[in-house]
Amino acid sequence: MNEVLNNIITRRSVRAFTDEQIKDDDLQLILKAGIYAPSGMNRQSWRFTVVQNAQIIEKLENLIKTALGREKYNMYGCKTIIMLSNDRDNSNGLADCACALQNIFLAANSLGIGSCWINQLKTICDEPQIRSMLTQLEIPANHIVWGIAALGYPKANEPVKDRNMDVVKYF
Amino acid sequence: MNEVLNNIITRRSVRAFTDEQIKDDDLQLILKAGIYAPSGMNRQSWRFTVVQNAQIIEKLENLIKTALGREKYNMYGCKTIIMLSNDRDNSNGLADCACALQNIFLAANSLGIGSCWINQLKTICDEPQIRSMLTQLEIPANHIVWGIAALGYPKANEPVKDRNMDVVKYF
Repeated sequence: MNEVLNNIITRRSVRAFTDEQIKDDDLQLILKAGIYAPSGMNRQSWRFTVVQNAQIIEKLENLIKTALGREKYNMYGCKTIIMLSNDRDNSNGLADCACALQNIFLAANSLGIGSCWINQLKTICDEPQIRSMLTQLEIPANHIVWGIAALGYPKANEPVKDRNMDVVKYF
Repeated sequence: MNEVLNNIITRRSVRAFTDEQIKDDDLQLILKAGIYAPSGMNRQSWRFTVVQNAQIIEKLENLIKTALGREKYNMYGCKTIIMLSNDRDNSNGLADCACALQNIFLAANSLGIGSCWINQLKTICDEPQIRSMLTQLEIPANHIVWGIAALGYPKANEPVKDRNMDVVKYF
């Protein structure tokens, strides 16, 4: 099995991170990987919003907690988030962002960086307080944040979850 | 740049294939890569439907052509398709299939196999003739085919399309 395949099957979702920030050179490689994802009709109408300011991440966590009516909510103590947003009128916007996020997760894994898909924003982007925060982050008003990559160094060596291999039919 | 990152940025969409079928060992590695994508809540409610029978691929092409009212439609002469479907009631179904497709494209690229996302089925799965065909392929009635990976050996060395790198904001 080659290095690419090995990286794909060893990637797992990481939900506990150390306090160490990821290196900027690695962040740049991860962003490039995301940008090289395919996009429908090659439109590339996406935006990659990187947040490393801990106060902004905490504010976003609190807004999501309130919007969802949860007692607790956090992004697992990650040090960096990359918010993937896209034009809500682009019917491929979610698919494009998902491919970019998968590239980000795989690139991170190849660099020893853990990652997790944060999925809570997509249905609450237009809640006034959330939209106001997104506007402060210069995310266009016509964008939906389809997913967020939480990034950081893994605190523990979490296992890859079992997969059901019996999902294939042949014709 | 490591092999994983190099594979990510050299993948491109291939739209012309040779007549050679891909090797079964490679198909198995590509399927495993797809199955190791993340899925929301680890539900793995997807189905991977592999079609290598040329007559079935042609029938599907003709049904799509008719449903879309096009004069011409084909899947670029690919030798293998992998149809990614998911429960329509799973709100993460499209995102899960998109991540699996991206893994498939990357795995294929690492094995010298070309690929392209075929996007036409998602809005027409419930057209009666299309649904009948999907049922023949044992795709559950509650599934939407969110995307298809067309696979085969590239006929020409198509370039990677330029990317707009000016899509990142930092906070």
